[in-house]
Amino acid sequence: MVPWELELLNNTIPTESLYIVEFAPDVAYETLEWIVRKFRQRVLDNGAELIVKMEPYDPSKGFRIHLSCTMACLVKLAESVRLKKFSKKGQLREFSLIEIDQFIDSPEEVHGMFTSAEKQGLLRYALYNLRAAPHERFLPGYPNIRLYHGQSIVEKCYSKGIIVQIYPLHDLPNLKQLGKKWYKTILEPQPLDEVRAYFGQGLAMYFSFLGFYTSYLILPALFGCFQLLLWLLNFEDGIELFCIFNVLWATIFIEMWKRRSNELAYTWGTLTPAPYDDPRANYRGKLLADPVTGQIQPYYPRWKTLIKVYCGSLPVVFLCLLVAFYIMLWSFWSEEWLLAKQKEEWPIHDLALYIPGIVYTLIIVIMNRFYRIFATRLTEWENHRTESQFERNRVVKLVLFEFVNNFMSLFYIAFYLQNMEMLRMQIATMLIVLQFLNHFEEALLPIALRYGSEKVEELLVNYLAKKKRYRRFLEARLKKEDAENRLTAEDIRNLKTDEISSDNPAYRQAVDEGLLESYYGTIEDYLELFIQFGYVFLFSAVYPMAGILALLNNLLEIRADAFKMCKVFQRPPSMKVRHIGAWQPALQFLGALSVLTNCGLLYLSPSLRSSFSDWSETSWLLLWAGVEHLILALQLVLAMVIPNVPLWVRQSMARSEHEIRRKLEERVHSDLEKRLSKPCDI
Amino acid sequence: MVPWELELLNNTIPTESLYIVEFAPDVAYETLEWIVRKFRQRVLDNGAELIVKMEPYDPSKGFRIHLSCTMACLVKLAESVRLKKFSKKGQLREFSLIEIDQFIDSPEEVHGMFTSAEKQGLLRYALYNLRAAPHERFLPGYPNIRLYHGQSIVEKCYSKGIIVQIYPLHDLPNLKQLGKKWYKTILEPQPLDEVRAYFGQGLAMYFSFLGFYTSYLILPALFGCFQLLLWLLNFEDGIELFCIFNVLWATIFIEMWKRRSNELAYTWGTLTPAPYDDPRANYRGKLLADPVTGQIQPYYPRWKTLIKVYCGSLPVVFLCLLVAFYIMLWSFWSEEWLLAKQKEEWPIHDLALYIPGIVYTLIIVIMNRFYRIFATRLTEWENHRTESQFERNRVVKLVLFEFVNNFMSLFYIAFYLQNMEMLRMQIATMLIVLQFLNHFEEALLPIALRYGSEKVEELLVNYLAKKKRYRRFLEARLKKEDAENRLTAEDIRNLKTDEISSDNPAYRQAVDEGLLESYYGTIEDYLELFIQFGYVFLFSAVYPMAGILALLNNLLEIRADAFKMCKVFQRPPSMKVRHIGAWQPALQFLGALSVLTNCGLLYLSPSLRSSFSDWSETSWLLLWAGVEHLILALQLVLAMVIPNVPLWVRQSMARSEHEIRRKLEERVHSDLEKRLSKPCDI
Repeated sequence: MVPWELELLNNTIPTESLYIVEFAPDVAYETLEWIVRKFRQRVLDNGAELIVKMEPYDPSKGFRIHLSCTMACLVKLAESVRLKKFSKKGQLREFSLIEIDQFIDSPEEVHGMFTSAEKQGLLRYALYNLRAAPHERFLPGYPNIRLYHGQSIVEKCYSKGIIVQIYPLHDLPNLKQLGKKWYKTILEPQPLDEVRAYFGQGLAMYFSFLGFYTSYLILPALFGCFQLLLWLLNFEDGIELFCIFNVLWATIFIEMWKRRSNELAYTWGTLTPAPYDDPRANYRGKLLADPVTGQIQPYYPRWKTLIKVYCGSLPVVFLCLLVAFYIMLWSFWSEEWLLAKQKEEWPIHDLALYIPGIVYTLIIVIMNRFYRIFATRLTEWENHRTESQFERNRVVKLVLFEFVNNFMSLFYIAFYLQNMEMLRMQIATMLIVLQFLNHFEEALLPIALRYGSEKVEELLVNYLAKKKRYRRFLEARLKKEDAENRLTAEDIRNLKTDEISSDNPAYRQAVDEGLLESYYGTIEDYLELFIQFGYVFLFSAVYPMAGILALLNNLLEIRADAFKMCKVFQRPPSMKVRHIGAWQPALQFLGALSVLTNCGLLYLSPSLRSSFSDWSETSWLLLWAGVEHLILALQLVLAMVIPNVPLWVRQSMARSEHEIRRKLEERVHSDLEKRLSKPCDI
Repeated sequence: MVPWELELLNNTIPTESLYIVEFAPDVAYETLEWIVRKFRQRVLDNGAELIVKMEPYDPSKGFRIHLSCTMACLVKLAESVRLKKFSKKGQLREFSLIEIDQFIDSPEEVHGMFTSAEKQGLLRYALYNLRAAPHERFLPGYPNIRLYHGQSIVEKCYSKGIIVQIYPLHDLPNLKQLGKKWYKTILEPQPLDEVRAYFGQGLAMYFSFLGFYTSYLILPALFGCFQLLLWLLNFEDGIELFCIFNVLWATIFIEMWKRRSNELAYTWGTLTPAPYDDPRANYRGKLLADPVTGQIQPYYPRWKTLIKVYCGSLPVVFLCLLVAFYIMLWSFWSEEWLLAKQKEEWPIHDLALYIPGIVYTLIIVIMNRFYRIFATRLTEWENHRTESQFERNRVVKLVLFEFVNNFMSLFYIAFYLQNMEMLRMQIATMLIVLQFLNHFEEALLPIALRYGSEKVEELLVNYLAKKKRYRRFLEARLKKEDAENRLTAEDIRNLKTDEISSDNPAYRQAVDEGLLESYYGTIEDYLELFIQFGYVFLFSAVYPMAGILALLNNLLEIRADAFKMCKVFQRPPSMKVRHIGAWQPALQFLGALSVLTNCGLLYLSPSLRSSFSDWSETSWLLLWAGVEHLILALQLVLAMVIPNVPLWVRQSMARSEHEIRRKLEERVHSDLEKRLSKPCDI
């Protein structure tokens, strides 16, 4: 034990405001009182031990509170979540109060001990870990909102709309420093450690992936330049073969990323997974004793979910893919039909030929919007137990659909029409248009929403009304206007909560950030990279320049995304992640597919074929089938030979495991000796 | 603590003789005395705390000791290796002395608490875990045999030939019972739990695999019968397509085995791997502080090993494969040449046409022998740190070579000669001849060696002299005859060791079992199954009957192998395994390859082709390439969709992890409360 431990444990200095919770304007007083009391109660009385301050109450806006906590509380939270931190000696260890002198030298240092993301994550844990006690069978004030023992109260209130917004506040001085190093430079490497310290592991993982991927694009981009040069100099023979390098490079990238991601997860203390996740807030089922924790929790048999996935969702999703595929075919057919009519001397203007393409693009954009909502609903219907199962199943559905939408037309052009010129055009257009649209939608549109005049805002908001991510924002606005059942001044007094003064900068900040959109999660950002990866590597045999375009875009994307995170959205809550999730197998799938497509393109390539004109058609096909199998085998061998976890990480992990084991053995032996020498103990 | 714990810890009842250690006849007295003393010393004095008894000394035969230990010692060993056992409540828990009442009710029951394999394994651990202290820099009596701190003394002595044999004794009453249920029945299921209790996890895993694989052969065998029937009734069209079922079945088998093996490993308490293995006895390198344990141990940079593997061994192995391939071609060419000469009216007898085949088989048998020794030496040269790395690299080398030897000729016949009749003949011959040879070499030959007259034995032993597995036996015999430096009667007296009387049944048993061969490890047994798997699934399009032959053989093999383990060999030491090791990927490789071969055979099949005679050659090839890709994709999807660890195992693991975490959290909270309420503690 450390001499100043007690001083630390009695430290009552509060942190700055960390989280804002906004209640619906029509929240029942009974509920509000109950929740606020829970927030304040001691952990041993089933509370969260937080410091609650309320904003000056404005009945038209709803009730908002600021949450913070004492340093002592932070330390205790860190101990109970077994936070992993680097000690002063540079070893990664589980945080433990008894050994706190491994991390800091005096109680004053505790303020700088936790990073901004850690503080915020610990408070978030306290908030969401506030669970219903056995006797709390429903939400006070809402008798038909049932609770079960151990359910997260905040999650339930949020999913039922009683809590409208929960968001962490930005830490402005830190944010400013981070911004300077991050989005205000152009060629500096990303300050990833600072990003993690500020935004947590989830976003740091995304930005690490983006950076890593971008660095692996340099070589393909150089090859692209080289090929461009050769084309300009009119060398055309056999340069398509460079694409084999590209394909292998993609494999190496995927494998090296797996390594890098494990390395990151290790240094971030998230490599070993949490053994058991709590059920999602929306998980439905009979209330039964959980087979693992023994607590009464909803239970829905896994096999029923699997039957829903394979017999319900899978066929439906394939139907959607089929429809998307058919619409694509229809656009090609209409174009052909128009062209034929034009030749038959119909008075059609050349521009009219673009109509099918434009209509197709529009349909796709609309379908995409609906499909996203549909996929989420479908996954919700499947009723997965944990958040990660839910996300994985949703990502698979989205990936399949995006794959068909983005790449099927290219497959059709490449292997059915076999029109390489058209393929090249299409890829170039898609890459440029798509990336511009993305930048526009992600970064510029929200800024417009924010700074634009009321009029523009209303127009845009109405247009975007169907988009999931803007819905909550709208709903809250509608509710505010309709609320009848408002809190009275007496209610507010009865809460006995300190009020934050309206000239406190934290108040101003909370109001400002409350108006921002909340970040929609990394899924869209990963999807964008996934599609780009496909464009660059699937058809590199015909369009090696894709690498250059992608590289340029990503150099911009890194800074734009950084700006987006810092300035455009509410601060996203820090998330724990071990890897990039379902995106890893999705990329591997594209990697394997790129072997097929590139070999297929080389097989069709007229310039290569002409050099081997004495080969029969069958031997030519056999040759490329053989090459394809060889490359696939090489991919497999590479995947097996490159270890997924770097040696130093394995050694480090073994070292800490070894230490634990040695200590245990020592204790066992000394215990035995003691007991043998003191028979009077019995 | 349990009231009768002390009684247990003072229990001095010795177990029966568990291990026999035989020293070289020319061992130095100094060494012998030192080792025997170490065996007996207390653990705290760096000893093993074993009970040592010697056999009556016969100078011509070498010095032999029997090792056993007290029950108290067994219990302490079980605690320090953290043995996992099922508690009385049926939960799998780490054995711990404090909680011994979870396993037994009174100290008397301790005799029945450990299985035969566990007792033997614990003693083996004590024996091999006897490590050199920092001041012990060389082996007493052999100044040029260097020791380093922490090196296993017994392993070193064995590798230097100072200890000639170390073998566990059979537990005859148990063995008899086991035999009755195992090899003395024909259609009963194998008593796998008893096998594990007696032989340990390594062998139980092999026999589980053998049984599991055999049960998955039933369906292919039924298909084989059905096809046989169809052929007899002269239906020939399209029945080759059944092979697609076979290929998918093989995939399902491989995936389901992965699941089963994890399930077994979990119930055996070996699913979570040991975090860090000790270096192998033959691992060479500079003596440095180990990065994990901090002990001084040999260290050889891993990158040097990898360079040796990829730049040294790999090319050499491929050269060997090339030579084997060339010899195969040569045998085919000679046969053709002879056939041509015969047609040119040379007076060659038809039987002479078989000469190339026979010569090829002989060369292969001889090459195989040498290659095995060579592969082991090569892997030794690569200098892998752990036993499992060593084994994996050796298995890969053996598998590649056996693959070329067994299957390359079939590939040549199928896809170059395209002679399906010949292919069918070849597979049938190989399956029958190979399996007969195996049964002969594995079970009958050692019996002949044992019961045959001296003359026969000498002939056979001389013939087999070059086989690694008989070499040690020979070397020991030679040494016995040459030894000059023998122990005197006084030396023996000075050892002050109890003598085991010559009419003790354990003495007779030890002598008998000392004459048996030691079991060569499971590698050969797995190899045999690997090759059989290849014959059954790679070419099932042309020879679906292979399944029937394999099934019949395996039904015999199960019983023959069981007999071999119980009666023919010395009792093998029990080994901890988590899975079947490198054989799993080797089988997966065959599984993927079988898609290629079967689709290739269907593409070549004249009967199928004739039904699609209006297809162009190219479309026909594209069709089969397409089918092949579809099946490969299906394989991948199956592998991804079938979870490797069954749900109940995941839940069980999560449950125990959850309990540990809950207890820890409770302790943390109550500790905190205590410290907060007692400020005087500081």
